[in-house]
Amino acid sequence: MPHYKLALLGFGNVGQALARLLLRKQDELHHRYGLTFSVTGIATGHHGNAIDPAGINLESALAAMTAGGDALSPLATLPPSGDSFDFVRRCGANVLFENSPVNYASGQPAVDHLQTALELGMHTITANKGPVVHAYRALTNLAASKGRKFYFESAVMDGAPIFSLFRETLPTSNVSAFRGVLNSTTNLILTRMESGESFDQAVAYAQAIGIAETDPSGDIDGWDAAVKVAALVTVLMDFPLLPTQVERQGIRSISPQEVQRARQVDKRWRLICSAERTTEGLRARVQPEMVPSSSPFYQIEGTTSLIQFETDVLGSLTLIETDPGPETTAYGLLADFINAVRD
Amino acid sequence: MPHYKLALLGFGNVGQALARLLLRKQDELHHRYGLTFSVTGIATGHHGNAIDPAGINLESALAAMTAGGDALSPLATLPPSGDSFDFVRRCGANVLFENSPVNYASGQPAVDHLQTALELGMHTITANKGPVVHAYRALTNLAASKGRKFYFESAVMDGAPIFSLFRETLPTSNVSAFRGVLNSTTNLILTRMESGESFDQAVAYAQAIGIAETDPSGDIDGWDAAVKVAALVTVLMDFPLLPTQVERQGIRSISPQEVQRARQVDKRWRLICSAERTTEGLRARVQPEMVPSSSPFYQIEGTTSLIQFETDVLGSLTLIETDPGPETTAYGLLADFINAVRD
Repeated sequence: MPHYKLALLGFGNVGQALARLLLRKQDELHHRYGLTFSVTGIATGHHGNAIDPAGINLESALAAMTAGGDALSPLATLPPSGDSFDFVRRCGANVLFENSPVNYASGQPAVDHLQTALELGMHTITANKGPVVHAYRALTNLAASKGRKFYFESAVMDGAPIFSLFRETLPTSNVSAFRGVLNSTTNLILTRMESGESFDQAVAYAQAIGIAETDPSGDIDGWDAAVKVAALVTVLMDFPLLPTQVERQGIRSISPQEVQRARQVDKRWRLICSAERTTEGLRARVQPEMVPSSSPFYQIEGTTSLIQFETDVLGSLTLIETDPGPETTAYGLLADFINAVRD
Repeated sequence: MPHYKLALLGFGNVGQALARLLLRKQDELHHRYGLTFSVTGIATGHHGNAIDPAGINLESALAAMTAGGDALSPLATLPPSGDSFDFVRRCGANVLFENSPVNYASGQPAVDHLQTALELGMHTITANKGPVVHAYRALTNLAASKGRKFYFESAVMDGAPIFSLFRETLPTSNVSAFRGVLNSTTNLILTRMESGESFDQAVAYAQAIGIAETDPSGDIDGWDAAVKVAALVTVLMDFPLLPTQVERQGIRSISPQEVQRARQVDKRWRLICSAERTTEGLRARVQPEMVPSSSPFYQIEGTTSLIQFETDVLGSLTLIETDPGPETTAYGLLADFINAVRD
């Protein structure tokens, strides 16, 4: 029975959810997929890191994180890593889960983490969109040359199967277009404005419940959505596209009056992500649209996301993921791990 | 490069759509999946059959079918088959596509066709639900013992990936419940009744456009839906269930007055398929429900179908397949073929 050594680079909400899921699914991985695992390394930005070739106790690591400070170092049996690259080189893993903070303009340092891990012969799995839009082909080709996988199911729509859907279940299909609601912060803000709040009030609410960031412009100006569009186009339409190449309009320009007027005619504003092949090439957009009540986009609320694909083999195929959270992102990482090693 | 010999048992709307799709995707199968194929046998109930170890010209076969009568026999280079089992034994294929008319009470003769083909070492692929509900475990185990696959993606929701979704993209997930609209004839009848038609008028319309059968009771009384529920429960919930074990209520009892009353409160009747694990075991049902306009079921019209899955790893995951037809069923068969041989 194969045994896999895992390393977790990044141990925030998603990394910790992955640790809990690994504990919960340990027996099933053994009995249904015939594989066992140990976690030989965990690294964080602010809570230290630990490497133990014999395997770190995940329950201890989760408990330590609640204490704060240099929480992880006491779990190590080898000296702590100097930096994240030193960690990747010394973690001794077969599979690296890369979930460190990423710069969306460059995809770094995630791209270099993943490249280093692949060169060392690890499977590489990330929930980061950055490496997908900046280095999909390079990392995929490097992985193939090493007989390993670079998977990133959780980069778009959390754990819902989007990339694996096309990779595994829809062979020979060609995506000609898609439309989706993929950013929950703007969805929440628009929904709050329907109830009479101003734009600023709605943003403040989204920040208060931890959905929007302190600087909410990444969501509000459509950058997060544009990165997701670029990732989907790059992978599913085989057309390398940067977020800056996506036509992008955020939701700042929508006034409360426009939101109310839409409601009066039984419509709602939604930030729509889309792409389509055209005779000139490809058109990719993020823009607010008024959708009628007959549209499936009309019902999308909260963190729920929806995407409709047009292909050359099926009618329109729609996926809706309802109320995802860090635990669903963690599931996408686990699914990638299983699919990488059982292929 | 591997070469596969295919046999088509059943060459009606779906079989012919598969032949056209195979022709259209031939180059892609070669270049993207590194495989080539020939069709060594085609058998029909009323238009003869043909076996040619060197490969039947699919365009000729499609053209011949428009002529009617014993259309296929002139394409044969070997003597015609005595019956469908003789065809399976003599077709010389690596992959059998079984799409012959099936008895839903027994799953025959499809079950025996598939068993015979598996014993001869063929991969077996069908769009028939009958063999899934009557012989899923037996055929799957037989296939495994022969190192072959028994796949049936098109048995529920045409070519939309349902079975392969869980098999390939959602490892370790456990389905706890599902709800769906899976029968288009009842959907159409209920929609027509909303426009003021009587039940009988709506049934007559569905028959006139070829959606409902001469004896429409299989749809109207919920049998088709119950067979689909049984197939989903058997495979995805690992709980063998016969259609007769599904609580079943069709749409005969819904009066035009009830349909109109629902519309007045912004609701619609839909025939809902569902199953859920309970403390006592499993409850599976087909029954009409009034759904509110906020429900995704409310929008489902025409041949469109929708299913919502509850699992232990994601929030609710919903798939919608819009306006499928024989060509999408054919795509499910093609996807099964590719997945069977690339595994």
